[in-house]
Amino acid sequence: MSRFDLASWLTARTRDVDRALDRLLPKASAKPATIHKAMRYSLFAGGKRMRPALVLAAAEACGGGIEAAMPLACAVECIHTYSLIHDDLPGMDNDDMRRGKPTNHKVFGEGIAILAGDALLTQAFEIAASATESKRYGSREIVLEIAKASGSLQLIAGQVADLEGEGRKISRAQLRYIHERKTSALLACSVRLGGMSAGCTPAQLAALTDFGYHVGLAFQVIDDILDVTQTSEELGKTAGKDVKAGKATYPSIVGLEKSRAIAAQLSAKAEAALKPFRGRAVALEAISDHLLRRKS
Amino acid sequence: MSRFDLASWLTARTRDVDRALDRLLPKASAKPATIHKAMRYSLFAGGKRMRPALVLAAAEACGGGIEAAMPLACAVECIHTYSLIHDDLPGMDNDDMRRGKPTNHKVFGEGIAILAGDALLTQAFEIAASATESKRYGSREIVLEIAKASGSLQLIAGQVADLEGEGRKISRAQLRYIHERKTSALLACSVRLGGMSAGCTPAQLAALTDFGYHVGLAFQVIDDILDVTQTSEELGKTAGKDVKAGKATYPSIVGLEKSRAIAAQLSAKAEAALKPFRGRAVALEAISDHLLRRKS
Repeated sequence: MSRFDLASWLTARTRDVDRALDRLLPKASAKPATIHKAMRYSLFAGGKRMRPALVLAAAEACGGGIEAAMPLACAVECIHTYSLIHDDLPGMDNDDMRRGKPTNHKVFGEGIAILAGDALLTQAFEIAASATESKRYGSREIVLEIAKASGSLQLIAGQVADLEGEGRKISRAQLRYIHERKTSALLACSVRLGGMSAGCTPAQLAALTDFGYHVGLAFQVIDDILDVTQTSEELGKTAGKDVKAGKATYPSIVGLEKSRAIAAQLSAKAEAALKPFRGRAVALEAISDHLLRRKS
Repeated sequence: MSRFDLASWLTARTRDVDRALDRLLPKASAKPATIHKAMRYSLFAGGKRMRPALVLAAAEACGGGIEAAMPLACAVECIHTYSLIHDDLPGMDNDDMRRGKPTNHKVFGEGIAILAGDALLTQAFEIAASATESKRYGSREIVLEIAKASGSLQLIAGQVADLEGEGRKISRAQLRYIHERKTSALLACSVRLGGMSAGCTPAQLAALTDFGYHVGLAFQVIDDILDVTQTSEELGKTAGKDVKAGKATYPSIVGLEKSRAIAAQLSAKAEAALKPFRGRAVALEAISDHLLRRKS
């Protein structure tokens, strides 16, 4: 791992993902131009491409190529972007800014922002169903994987619970429920899709699921910790946002020390899940290491 | 056709569709209950199930069974319902009532209504990908069919053009563009899916496409005519709504007489498209006859 250059790997992969997204989406000039501009505005708004990177890294860990995994990486990014656009709407979190830019509805209006989210969600399935089928997993399995992870029992369930939990006192179990669905579901789906594109074995798929699940949970606990310990400058976004929004966080429920212990525990479980890959999961290891030791 | 009892056929099929939807969707009690209640509220709000009926009738016309077509009929109804929920939102058409009942966001709030639409769209793909694959068309073709018909170049394009056309003077060509996308795309998709579930031939698929396209256009022109010629009582909904909303309609662009001639022409084209089925498309013929001669 010490020899693996994550920064170069991420730079190259992110560029590939950006190119593939540009190729797979209708041009900004495609009629009606408004909707395609709106879709592209949020899709190319400077996201870190964490989910696509996980798809590609998981494919590599299972001996698969970038090319077969790329459409699935793009599909997952479309899902992630749609969920952010809808999350930011006045009827939901009502956010004006994201990553230092005005949110989709601030630029294009609420109606177009709703439709741009819908269109990206639909586009995700078109891209996923168009992907080359691997020897073990066909379009059927791929589409079901994405639909389940982003449906009303997972990603959307997390958003509903988050919406309903605002300003209320919630338990640690409920917070875990939200994190599992809002974050872990799509991260586990990302690595699973990467594995599936490489025609991975059931054992590899189980290891990837375990890894994605724990990385997602650890990521969220660390996010909660950074929100209270870092300044807005260090974070590059408004610090203390969760507290202000009356959102329950790990530090607010179990305290900062205990939160750190939980994050360390979850991170260790994520790392342990990669053992069966016996050093072939270098990119995955480096990404999780990067995500879990980050300061912003 | 004179011997075909459409009313009985529709009653039986609608009951089957309702049962299948109930079976395929998470229970209303599934956690988080709010989202599943909201999804079901709009899905079981008294829709006429026109699209599912078209899926099943097209399957019959191609010699296929109800069972294989049913998941696709349900998927299309989920797409239709999601588009209505989002269409009614304050950021879009801002409607308080639909089919005599409060709209989704009036009952569940805007945030949940956005998510309920998202969840139904996602559910549509899960249901479609779970359907039994026919000998000619796999999950891949089915999912692509639905994604394209409901994506940013078709259904969503129609909604965008509709949104952008409000209160503006638009041409007959632009109105046709909106109708093709807002209505014809999903109607053509419906009959195509029915045919695909029956493993139809390419010639049958082309005939169904032609039929669905023209039924959709005829349906919209007739809708426009009824909006200005019928009273609210006769329609069972607010008459003159389009005029009030400043929406361009066929009568407002080409006049009432010409609109009637266009509707008759489109209806004739829809009927002619069924010729290759040589009398085996009885249910399809009866449904289009019913839709195109309706007074409300």
